[in-house]
Amino acid sequence: MKPENTSLEITKATSSTIGKVDFDNLTFGKYYADHMMICDFIDGKWETPKILPYGPMQMEPSAKVFHYGQAVFEGMKAFKDKDGKVWLFRPEENFKRINKSSKRMAIPEFPEEYFFSALKTLLKLDKEWIKSGDGNSLYIRPFAIATEAGVSASPSNRYRFVIICCPAKAYYSSPVKVTIAQEYSRSADGGVGFAKAAGNYGAQFYPTNLAKDKGYQQIIWTDANTHEYLEEAGTMNIFFRIGDKLVTAPTNDRILDGVTRKSIIALAERENIEVEVRRVTVKEIVEAAENGSLKEIFGTGTAATVAQVSGFEFQDNYHELPEVENPYSMKFKKMLQDIQYNRAEDPFGWRYAVEV
Amino acid sequence: MKPENTSLEITKATSSTIGKVDFDNLTFGKYYADHMMICDFIDGKWETPKILPYGPMQMEPSAKVFHYGQAVFEGMKAFKDKDGKVWLFRPEENFKRINKSSKRMAIPEFPEEYFFSALKTLLKLDKEWIKSGDGNSLYIRPFAIATEAGVSASPSNRYRFVIICCPAKAYYSSPVKVTIAQEYSRSADGGVGFAKAAGNYGAQFYPTNLAKDKGYQQIIWTDANTHEYLEEAGTMNIFFRIGDKLVTAPTNDRILDGVTRKSIIALAERENIEVEVRRVTVKEIVEAAENGSLKEIFGTGTAATVAQVSGFEFQDNYHELPEVENPYSMKFKKMLQDIQYNRAEDPFGWRYAVEV
Repeated sequence: MKPENTSLEITKATSSTIGKVDFDNLTFGKYYADHMMICDFIDGKWETPKILPYGPMQMEPSAKVFHYGQAVFEGMKAFKDKDGKVWLFRPEENFKRINKSSKRMAIPEFPEEYFFSALKTLLKLDKEWIKSGDGNSLYIRPFAIATEAGVSASPSNRYRFVIICCPAKAYYSSPVKVTIAQEYSRSADGGVGFAKAAGNYGAQFYPTNLAKDKGYQQIIWTDANTHEYLEEAGTMNIFFRIGDKLVTAPTNDRILDGVTRKSIIALAERENIEVEVRRVTVKEIVEAAENGSLKEIFGTGTAATVAQVSGFEFQDNYHELPEVENPYSMKFKKMLQDIQYNRAEDPFGWRYAVEV
Repeated sequence: MKPENTSLEITKATSSTIGKVDFDNLTFGKYYADHMMICDFIDGKWETPKILPYGPMQMEPSAKVFHYGQAVFEGMKAFKDKDGKVWLFRPEENFKRINKSSKRMAIPEFPEEYFFSALKTLLKLDKEWIKSGDGNSLYIRPFAIATEAGVSASPSNRYRFVIICCPAKAYYSSPVKVTIAQEYSRSADGGVGFAKAAGNYGAQFYPTNLAKDKGYQQIIWTDANTHEYLEEAGTMNIFFRIGDKLVTAPTNDRILDGVTRKSIIALAERENIEVEVRRVTVKEIVEAAENGSLKEIFGTGTAATVAQVSGFEFQDNYHELPEVENPYSMKFKKMLQDIQYNRAEDPFGWRYAVEV
């Protein structure tokens, strides 16, 4: 753990809005913790990060983020254990990934010491917003946006890196029905699909709305070229359990290198569950569903942790998944949460203690 | 021309910043006309549009545009003729296209009467910002952004439609060198490439920076799957002149349906120049360059109008284009500008008079 950077400029909120929040009935993304971090990139360098009361920002209407989508983000969670200690889960992975995303979107990389000192300061100031108990967390959203005023289609010379936090309960608590993409697609070879670039998400809303109209909450995206290979679900990576084996697509320039995904792979290997990281065809999954060898499908992501899929639609046929005893999805979710909430050993060194 | 909508709420600027602008030495996108239009979509409907002094907007840090790139835009120009009359060029096309882009990005469509009454009001208020003379124009940037405060990855329930204007001179005045994409790509089948979605542009900045480092100002994108077919140049559609014939790629879900592109096709047909709208292979263009039949390459777009290409790079070979007499590019540029500046007949009905 790096020393706290004392050069942050801190302006504390004069009052807290925490009293307005019903933590038992949270709408994700509706309430924000009292403080945020803002750091501007001006004249070729990141200025001193500022911790400020959460609130609106002034933006030029011509700011490039509005016009050219030069924006990236991350999703992380802080967990509180039963003793009130606060933990992050593999935050270095998110830090590395936001800079990888930034590079692809021509955004300058953010300094590691700023990222971690801002995180620690925010979690200390807003520690009351982190609730203990299974599924409770403080969702942390670091993001970077192009702020230069100027409508010419070229990289911005100004950026703003922001961290905001909002209390969260587990997402998608009941199993989801999904549909397999046959017409629309999420990303191209040589494109930005591997990055958490803002535009990747907005581009999925319309096809997802069409899917929802048919009763499916999520789309499993396929390769844009043939629609024969299963890729990811837009906010989640996807695992298939065939017999006792797990299969998931390899990451590439179209697929996000999910932190939960790689944690599940590591946990599965520890449990001596075979994991095949290889291209997965729609055909084999349909066949496995038909012959009964497809036991589970689940999605993994920071927001969802592990989300069970109850069935999938392909070419107007709905394939209901069987109810299995002790599903892998729930086993891995519990293992992951036990590590996240400091209820289990952490042989991988994934937990990151935050002094609050 | 639709009657002016008198229900706009107008707040005039108390002073003008026009005195600060050196119209002979403009940096595109640096200065903005005194007024802008803002219209919010709240509770399922677009509110009354407001004309306001140009200035910053307050945005929630959690506004969805920053996180999910739910944003679209258009580019248009207003021209002033020698008698001081103001003209738009095919504005209905831009209106239709922004709604087509919005639909794909799950943004509610904007009402036609609001769009045109706002345009007319802005051009009337800021008529001094439109300068006559070849290449001078007022660039108009309508755009729509998701403004709901909320980091959950789902369509926003609030949007803002904005129109800002900035004085412009012709872009890319000298011929540009381009490179043909072999590694990166711009869009996928089934994706949002046909839309003026913000993220399509930011995603090109990094590969374009790499191209610039090698001395090429623009990339001609190829299909993401094989890189064998030439598509568009990101901010321009592309035409190839082989012998006396023009060839350009058909529009599809990866390629923007450019207003300048279709105007050039119509002008070429009027001039009895053969135009083939069909898939164009890299191979045939390289061969045409090698055997001397490739006479010209040019890009078309609202910002650039018509931009000559002086040569292209493919697989480390640079193909310089010949100097041709009376190039099509300049011929079409002149024809287009003569219509735009009301110096020629307008048999197509493309000019749209604005009462100022």
